[in-house]
Amino acid sequence: MQVKILGSAAGGGFPQWNCACPNCSGVRNGHFEGKPRLQTQLAVSGDGATWFLLGASPDLRAQIESAPDLHPRNGFRHSPIAGAILASADLDHVLGLLLLRELQPLRVYATESVLHQLRDENRMFAMLNRIPEQVRWSVIRAEEQIALQTVEGTSLGIDCKSVALSSRLPAYATGSANSNDAVIGLILSNNSGRKLGFFPQLPCLTPELHALFASLDFLLMDGTFWSDDELIRLQGTGQRARDMGHIPVGGREGTLEQLKALAKPRKMYIHINNTNPMLNEAGPEYRQVRDAGWELAGDGCQLTL
Amino acid sequence: MQVKILGSAAGGGFPQWNCACPNCSGVRNGHFEGKPRLQTQLAVSGDGATWFLLGASPDLRAQIESAPDLHPRNGFRHSPIAGAILASADLDHVLGLLLLRELQPLRVYATESVLHQLRDENRMFAMLNRIPEQVRWSVIRAEEQIALQTVEGTSLGIDCKSVALSSRLPAYATGSANSNDAVIGLILSNNSGRKLGFFPQLPCLTPELHALFASLDFLLMDGTFWSDDELIRLQGTGQRARDMGHIPVGGREGTLEQLKALAKPRKMYIHINNTNPMLNEAGPEYRQVRDAGWELAGDGCQLTL
Repeated sequence: MQVKILGSAAGGGFPQWNCACPNCSGVRNGHFEGKPRLQTQLAVSGDGATWFLLGASPDLRAQIESAPDLHPRNGFRHSPIAGAILASADLDHVLGLLLLRELQPLRVYATESVLHQLRDENRMFAMLNRIPEQVRWSVIRAEEQIALQTVEGTSLGIDCKSVALSSRLPAYATGSANSNDAVIGLILSNNSGRKLGFFPQLPCLTPELHALFASLDFLLMDGTFWSDDELIRLQGTGQRARDMGHIPVGGREGTLEQLKALAKPRKMYIHINNTNPMLNEAGPEYRQVRDAGWELAGDGCQLTL
Repeated sequence: MQVKILGSAAGGGFPQWNCACPNCSGVRNGHFEGKPRLQTQLAVSGDGATWFLLGASPDLRAQIESAPDLHPRNGFRHSPIAGAILASADLDHVLGLLLLRELQPLRVYATESVLHQLRDENRMFAMLNRIPEQVRWSVIRAEEQIALQTVEGTSLGIDCKSVALSSRLPAYATGSANSNDAVIGLILSNNSGRKLGFFPQLPCLTPELHALFASLDFLLMDGTFWSDDELIRLQGTGQRARDMGHIPVGGREGTLEQLKALAKPRKMYIHINNTNPMLNEAGPEYRQVRDAGWELAGDGCQLTL
């Protein structure tokens, strides 16, 4: 299984358009040990020819152009991208679908809660169903394992299992979901049993999740915020990380401490907010992350599992 | 009045993710006399300090980062961007608003038809009204002239007049608008009487519009398609340019021929589709455009009126 990391920032990217925090100012003026990042986006493939997206970032157009493997190859209108799997209905995770509206056959896997937000509550996504052979929406159910397929029914050689995490809908939606499938984690595995875990939003950490993470070969973990009050300290106002569904990285209750016994998988933080001090590779937080055996996912990184 | 051209392509940009037409293939492999383009986006300012966007392209994040004048200057959260004016509710013209959702005070001017699509028909745009001091929506009426103002009431020194063009709503919407304000053109003027016309979508050309164009100093004109059947010839299927609300550039009924007597304004084509042969600067269509006194708008171009 090939994995391309096309983006690794949280919503808004790094730098963020209206932010002049030390990270954003630093990366703009070049006096910063750290890299700019597009919004979180993965692409996975079993054979290097047909690709599935994990998420659909608002930066997807630039992300596709940055990766020659994702450029069209056959005929005037073609794409090696066969579809996408969505882990939530968050704007920074779904808006990119609207950038794929040019009448291409695609399969989009998502839970019922997410499909409801896009298909029943939003007319714009009807642009993905203007002709019969365009997007086919496929429901994924929590804990169910499915074999990824193109619209034409060709297997990708990759299985996907979803892990239900939360009933918390995005801020634009009203109410909450009926079930805890509004936010999911994704476990992708190939024929040789190698496993990737993609958890860009982790609202809670249970013993079951801990055991699941320990079984993985590669874990991409919610690295949105370093501390629970990160935005409040910076802006004087805002929400806490946990109130937004993100366990922070640092601190006694953070994922770095809570997952310190995790030995097997290669471990990267992804979906990193522009305000997160660990983006500064000259700072103590970055050193703490590296010393604990974690990496920061970076745009353009490619791995084979 | 300062004018920045931050993007000049039609929806999908150039190259387009799933297109391997001669233009897109050529610009990807480097064997092409012509430039890649982000989706159409302008920024205008009276004083160089406070800016208004014309349209809100899906590429807006990259477009803002590409222009240092648009980076934050004062405090941790700030932007020199004070608002946006919308000429339609087309996805490639409005999606960028959702990229400006980080609690910044902004004024957005649009017609009632456009505001209805965004505010009444779409929950996602509620992200622009999460706190009291965020987006203020202001109705612009056809033919009415308004003085652009920030949310705080500071004048930009720029007047804006809208020209009603069509009742044609975007393809994602159902039905059509009650009035012909679903698509408008924008005339911006400053204190010294210099006038900019922005018409990224021109469905019809009347004697009144011809006279209006002749009074301008700078005209940015719909350059989406070269010929009416451009997409059909390339793909074997699709809509005609005129059915999508765009007068083509070439041919006897095209804007190049119809507007050949237009002497005064500096004239640029913008909103150029990836399939338009005039993008190839080695081709006869580009030569025809240049010989007629027109230019192609290019990303990064900046003018002072």
